[in-house]
Amino acid sequence: LYRTLLMEPEGPAPRVDSARPITVPDTTRIRIVNFILNCRTAAGDTFEDLVKDGVFETRFPLHKVRGCLGARPEGGAGGGALTQSPEQGKENLKRTWARWRNMFRKQPIDDIRNYFGEKVALYFAWLGWYTCMLVPAALVGLIVFLSGFSLFNASQISKEICEAHDIYMCPRGDHRRRYQRLSDTCTFAKLTHLFDNEGTVIFAIFMALWATVFLEFWKRQRARVVLDWDLYGWDEDQEEVALELINCPDYKLQLHQHSYLKSTIILILSLLMICLMIGMAHVLVVYRVAAAAVFSSSALPFLEDQVTTAVVVSGALVHYVTILVMTKVNKVVALKLCDYEKSRTFSERESKFTVKFFTLQFFAHFSSLVYIAFILGRINGHPGKTVRLAGLWKLEECHLSGCMMDLFVQMAIIMGLKQTLSNCMEYLHPWLSHKCRSMRGSEARDPELRDWQLNYRLNPVYTFSLFDEFMEMMIQYGFTTIFVAAFPLAPLLALFSNLVEIRLDAIKMVRLQRRLVPRKAKDIGTWLQVLETIGVLAVIANGMVIAFTSEFIPRVVYKYRYGPCRQGARSSADCLTGYINHSLSVFHTKDFEDPVRIKGSENVTECRYRDYRNAQDYNFSEQFWTLLAIRLAFLILFEHVALCIKLVAAWFVPDVPQSVKNSVLEQKYEVLLGKLRGGPRQ
Amino acid sequence: LYRTLLMEPEGPAPRVDSARPITVPDTTRIRIVNFILNCRTAAGDTFEDLVKDGVFETRFPLHKVRGCLGARPEGGAGGGALTQSPEQGKENLKRTWARWRNMFRKQPIDDIRNYFGEKVALYFAWLGWYTCMLVPAALVGLIVFLSGFSLFNASQISKEICEAHDIYMCPRGDHRRRYQRLSDTCTFAKLTHLFDNEGTVIFAIFMALWATVFLEFWKRQRARVVLDWDLYGWDEDQEEVALELINCPDYKLQLHQHSYLKSTIILILSLLMICLMIGMAHVLVVYRVAAAAVFSSSALPFLEDQVTTAVVVSGALVHYVTILVMTKVNKVVALKLCDYEKSRTFSERESKFTVKFFTLQFFAHFSSLVYIAFILGRINGHPGKTVRLAGLWKLEECHLSGCMMDLFVQMAIIMGLKQTLSNCMEYLHPWLSHKCRSMRGSEARDPELRDWQLNYRLNPVYTFSLFDEFMEMMIQYGFTTIFVAAFPLAPLLALFSNLVEIRLDAIKMVRLQRRLVPRKAKDIGTWLQVLETIGVLAVIANGMVIAFTSEFIPRVVYKYRYGPCRQGARSSADCLTGYINHSLSVFHTKDFEDPVRIKGSENVTECRYRDYRNAQDYNFSEQFWTLLAIRLAFLILFEHVALCIKLVAAWFVPDVPQSVKNSVLEQKYEVLLGKLRGGPRQ
Repeated sequence: LYRTLLMEPEGPAPRVDSARPITVPDTTRIRIVNFILNCRTAAGDTFEDLVKDGVFETRFPLHKVRGCLGARPEGGAGGGALTQSPEQGKENLKRTWARWRNMFRKQPIDDIRNYFGEKVALYFAWLGWYTCMLVPAALVGLIVFLSGFSLFNASQISKEICEAHDIYMCPRGDHRRRYQRLSDTCTFAKLTHLFDNEGTVIFAIFMALWATVFLEFWKRQRARVVLDWDLYGWDEDQEEVALELINCPDYKLQLHQHSYLKSTIILILSLLMICLMIGMAHVLVVYRVAAAAVFSSSALPFLEDQVTTAVVVSGALVHYVTILVMTKVNKVVALKLCDYEKSRTFSERESKFTVKFFTLQFFAHFSSLVYIAFILGRINGHPGKTVRLAGLWKLEECHLSGCMMDLFVQMAIIMGLKQTLSNCMEYLHPWLSHKCRSMRGSEARDPELRDWQLNYRLNPVYTFSLFDEFMEMMIQYGFTTIFVAAFPLAPLLALFSNLVEIRLDAIKMVRLQRRLVPRKAKDIGTWLQVLETIGVLAVIANGMVIAFTSEFIPRVVYKYRYGPCRQGARSSADCLTGYINHSLSVFHTKDFEDPVRIKGSENVTECRYRDYRNAQDYNFSEQFWTLLAIRLAFLILFEHVALCIKLVAAWFVPDVPQSVKNSVLEQKYEVLLGKLRGGPRQ
Repeated sequence: LYRTLLMEPEGPAPRVDSARPITVPDTTRIRIVNFILNCRTAAGDTFEDLVKDGVFETRFPLHKVRGCLGARPEGGAGGGALTQSPEQGKENLKRTWARWRNMFRKQPIDDIRNYFGEKVALYFAWLGWYTCMLVPAALVGLIVFLSGFSLFNASQISKEICEAHDIYMCPRGDHRRRYQRLSDTCTFAKLTHLFDNEGTVIFAIFMALWATVFLEFWKRQRARVVLDWDLYGWDEDQEEVALELINCPDYKLQLHQHSYLKSTIILILSLLMICLMIGMAHVLVVYRVAAAAVFSSSALPFLEDQVTTAVVVSGALVHYVTILVMTKVNKVVALKLCDYEKSRTFSERESKFTVKFFTLQFFAHFSSLVYIAFILGRINGHPGKTVRLAGLWKLEECHLSGCMMDLFVQMAIIMGLKQTLSNCMEYLHPWLSHKCRSMRGSEARDPELRDWQLNYRLNPVYTFSLFDEFMEMMIQYGFTTIFVAAFPLAPLLALFSNLVEIRLDAIKMVRLQRRLVPRKAKDIGTWLQVLETIGVLAVIANGMVIAFTSEFIPRVVYKYRYGPCRQGARSSADCLTGYINHSLSVFHTKDFEDPVRIKGSENVTECRYRDYRNAQDYNFSEQFWTLLAIRLAFLILFEHVALCIKLVAAWFVPDVPQSVKNSVLEQKYEVLLGKLRGGPRQ
């Protein structure tokens, strides 16, 4: 009838439980039972084999329901650990944690630990801490953005752009070519100034520092939490071996293995995958270029006006879909690679999987952004002689008001979509499937059986459930730090998303999914290194955004080298007066291949474009090289200064708080004292 | 009469020894006794107080002399541990290790460990390993240097310089101004080409990789050695506490302390000291400038011809003396800072002292080199209008054949002096003082007393004896890696020096110094981090040397942008034809303030100088900016690529060899098995 959830207690199980004191917490009991189930039975069958043979259908730990089931002494049975201490049950967690109204309350980490095990508790502790630390970052980001607002109209540059009625911009794209007045881009120029102002540089440095401080404080926080759990000196290897030994006394030790050949093959395969990811980014580029051509030539007149917008938005959408698809592909590839590597223990395997999967995911998510930030619009040539893809399509150019705009739009769309859609999906999918399953099944009479049935109908969990949550947060962390200079609202978005995410995950875990098999852990593992790597990448990427994408450097250079405020020249005008005229190169319309085919070409003899080239042979001008040198110098300076600041900050804040260090020392002291007191007898 | 070397066995000592099994190695016994002596006696006096009061004069462990003294059971007495296992004595070490003829033989690390303790043994193991690893580096360096030789005459650039009889260089310096033919610098140009060729770039990348591989392999080596010594899981804190507890049962635990205020103050003080070091470098600059002025104006005619050489050599000498002086100053400052910080244990204090002292020493040694490599000759202005120090002295300019020459000479002098002089001093000083003391003292009759007397006459050792050796090697490692691009012979020099150094240190320790108090250690401590830091700095510094000091970039750019091989231009000439003419700027002699006062100015209308400036207004030309941009781009590329290679290499070579990992795991397994077998009884 009902697929059995019960199974015969296997041989060694009672021995384990009796060997341990009776006050073992649930989590430990579940772990032990789960471990036994993973072992081979005497007949040599693993549980997986039995499932395949149809003897069992599934196994999972049951959720506790307010102690109504009472304690079952034979905890080894049933694949489910039942309540032993009803006062710390699921209801408690439901009440204090997995509710929307508790959104701004502290999470009951210890309760979570008692119910779901250390690993899940650490995830939520980390997530809570991250959300906490996002508050100052979000605030500063908002201030930077708003300070842009306050200068909305005051900026000399916007003013000049809006008044430039007699400057004609060269036509871009292949279709509907016409000269545009610079003043037409007035609104966009003002918008650009919202996030491309002097505050951005300060904000980027602030975020680099923030990332370091966040990590350091998290390490301290972790040390405190883990000390409370008595796991400070816990050794995973030892525990694993102990479990194996208890279970089967003739267990053969699995040795560490390492082969340079395998490492090399994995390295090469990973590099190939990364190339594929970068290739995907190029496909996106081709898509955007092709889409632009198609949209422009399409008969729909309303589309024609908004070609650029349509292309950008649809490009971002395609990017989002690509990311979703690539995530699946990456997971499979990373799993295959890990299988090939053959790790010794599960946790080693998980850590290797983490590194591989994250690397692939990182390239999938960010390679397109890198293209937009640093390559888009730089390799186009000049109006008279543009670079064409496959000799057909013109490469995209940056938005009229600068390349920063493109990056901003792309970031906003991707982040917005990721946050909202992913969160919704994450919640709706288990909720719907849970509903579905509840509808289908019939009711059992026995209350205990009914409870089991209820549990059975919940969504199954996989080994990588928690892993997926972590991965999602890491990618989000990447978005909030790596291109933060282009999108200062990222921390704010992340903050909102995280507040929702914590409760979503909580509700999902408590109400919609079967209970996770608790796992012990004393830190968040490889994710810490991932966070550190993201921190370093963020410094490099932000430096590059400020140096190459933003117009910060050209403005500063103009101010002190060419503008009215330069050395020697005293002037009462704004220091940036004339910047716009200075930053646009001149193109003589007669040099177009087909000057007559452009609308309104009658009375325009020269048009302008964003670049630093000579008006004679359209080669790069001296100014271009000056600027390039200063941009590069800035990048080097920014990188080294920011990394130095990170180093000093990491040194300044000790990893482990003094109190934790001291209590560890005191523990050692106690142990030794005990040994010595009892020593002479031995 | 003789200052007593004996002292009463203090209270707890016998208990310690009796509590331990009788086969304790000497090293452990000496450590225990030494520890007890460091404790306060019942009267509250430390040993230091007693020394001050004249009760004792000194204390040190005795060298073993071939077991002729026999085992003394009361090992706690006399401050000296005497022989217990005569077969592993000092003689053995003397024979197999501390001899010149054993220079190329493997060191008996285990014997050293048994005699001097783990810390010294690790130092020699590291030194041996480092020397070993220097062989390939030295070979490659030599090949690069020699490949320069093979091109001695073939190089197009040298050829052009040697044939440039009609190119006049602008006069440099204030005195004896005359126009020099470019062809006069022919020899120097050829010499420069020895180390400033394409091989340098490859060598710099090779050295970055080498540094990483060296470190990784050392970690593996260390793991193997330490495993052999059964120290793998050794915990310094625990041992310290245990010793304290055994000694005085009512010992109060010293807690970890940390205060942000102290950290800040130390940070600020360190920064001040670093500024002082950099200031010293500036003083050196001023010295060189002033010396140039004095030498030039001196009446001695032979000096006048060789002003530059004299200045460079005397500058390097002064630099060397400064380094010696600053080493003393730095040590005092670092000690003071450490005292202020109040560390918990001795090893913590040592590690903090290491970081501080090394940082200061690093700046003292390298800030002058940094000036020569990157600043010298860049801030001079142009011939008509030079920058003057305090309005008086002209700043130095680079050598006529490029700034690389200056760096090479400085490196060669400093390294040569450091290696030879320091080694001599290090050996001669203890040897002489030992001789002196042996002469003075009279002979005792009692053979045991005579032996003690012999030991007493040896040079005293300090806590930081080993530390000084380490520091010396670190600075040497810095020289061999940080500016290796400018001085490819550095690894070779270091190799020779190290071969001598190992034996020198061995002889010093075995024959000339009192025996060191053995100390346990499972790694080389903070020095590993220091090595890693040097590795990263080396990448940055070498990238900068190639980008800014060497003429590699200008040559490459000329080849592909301006020269006869540039795109589109087909020519059978050497790609660098015309480079020399291209790289020199034109100066019209009529623009000099005092054109007539220069010798041979009659028929010279324009002179040339090394820079990229316009011939009209002497501002930087477009070429200058192009080059600067490419130099900076190269630096960024080089840094990131080299650091990536380092990362991959570090990942590729696991820190701990598989065999060590496995035996650690097996140990754990054994322990657990034992516990479980004996478990049910408890």
